[in-house]
Amino acid sequence: MSYPKPLRRLIGMLTRLPGIGEKTATRLALHMLKMPPAALREMGEAIAGLSDAVVRCSKCFNIADMDPCAYCTDPARRDELICVVEDPTDIIPIEKSGEYKGRYHVLGGAISPIDGVMPEDLHIRELLGRISQGGVEEVILATNLTAEGESTASYLAGAVKPLNVRVTRIAYGMPVGSDLEYADEITVGRAMKGRREV
Amino acid sequence: MSYPKPLRRLIGMLTRLPGIGEKTATRLALHMLKMPPAALREMGEAIAGLSDAVVRCSKCFNIADMDPCAYCTDPARRDELICVVEDPTDIIPIEKSGEYKGRYHVLGGAISPIDGVMPEDLHIRELLGRISQGGVEEVILATNLTAEGESTASYLAGAVKPLNVRVTRIAYGMPVGSDLEYADEITVGRAMKGRREV
Repeated sequence: MSYPKPLRRLIGMLTRLPGIGEKTATRLALHMLKMPPAALREMGEAIAGLSDAVVRCSKCFNIADMDPCAYCTDPARRDELICVVEDPTDIIPIEKSGEYKGRYHVLGGAISPIDGVMPEDLHIRELLGRISQGGVEEVILATNLTAEGESTASYLAGAVKPLNVRVTRIAYGMPVGSDLEYADEITVGRAMKGRREV
Repeated sequence: MSYPKPLRRLIGMLTRLPGIGEKTATRLALHMLKMPPAALREMGEAIAGLSDAVVRCSKCFNIADMDPCAYCTDPARRDELICVVEDPTDIIPIEKSGEYKGRYHVLGGAISPIDGVMPEDLHIRELLGRISQGGVEEVILATNLTAEGESTASYLAGAVKPLNVRVTRIAYGMPVGSDLEYADEITVGRAMKGRREV
């Protein structure tokens, strides 16, 4: 004897979420069962309607409240810079750094043939279209520093350079506040290569 | 600038779930945003309709696929024993122990005036009704070994004893496989008091 079927079905769905194992999913589902039906319905509807409720900017493909998004319309941001990221979440740390005041372009992922993600599945064509319209001087590749992010960056570099704009990649190096003793050798190697005159 | 409103709203709802902080809620909501809309709708509807989909046994108040539940109808279980638990989840470890083959009664929580849970909010009246119908010889109080579980157990003991049935409480003691060195003094004290001849 075990939990009723609708509960087991929900537990199964929740375990497919990142970082949610069987135990956590069970705890969450049982908690939901104790919630007032109105609150449960509200949460369920918020999830069911999420993709319809969240607008995507038709210019940069960031998630937004309106289209075009606030980053694309802000007159205080520089039009001649486009920072290319994999996902909308990647914009948040860049904004927090305060080091960037240009426009963005969200690819919607990284090239990964193993996962079936090919260049045509990402918003690359639209990026090239934006650059072709002119006024862009530099494209900053801020895809992740992973194997997929790297190959996406080099693919983009090859596609963007013929359009005669500067293409840059965010720097590799040691994280601020980190300890050499505990750093991996690849990061240390990159930090060595990228050393600068002081 | 931050996430769109429907996303922030969902993040807010998710943080109210147990063990889900702001960071985890954000990660979950952003993952949901990448899910296919059909899967998202399926999950949302499973949550919205959970309390309607899950049946509650009208006899023991356990969650079930049918009413009365399998524990109440199984002819191999003993009618003269009722094990009282706070929540449906508490039945699982008891069943796994293999030490119990009687009926169950789910209170739906524990008495906790601070949280506004009074005896009349729990299925205590229904428990007394079941006992009054006769045939019950022993009521095993298996509420949690917490302050609330303890006061619920002593309240139940007072209510059940006048009906002339044996009332027992599950044993306090050292968990199997545990180390005396790391045990808290209250548990060790209870284990001492509850010592048995070998």
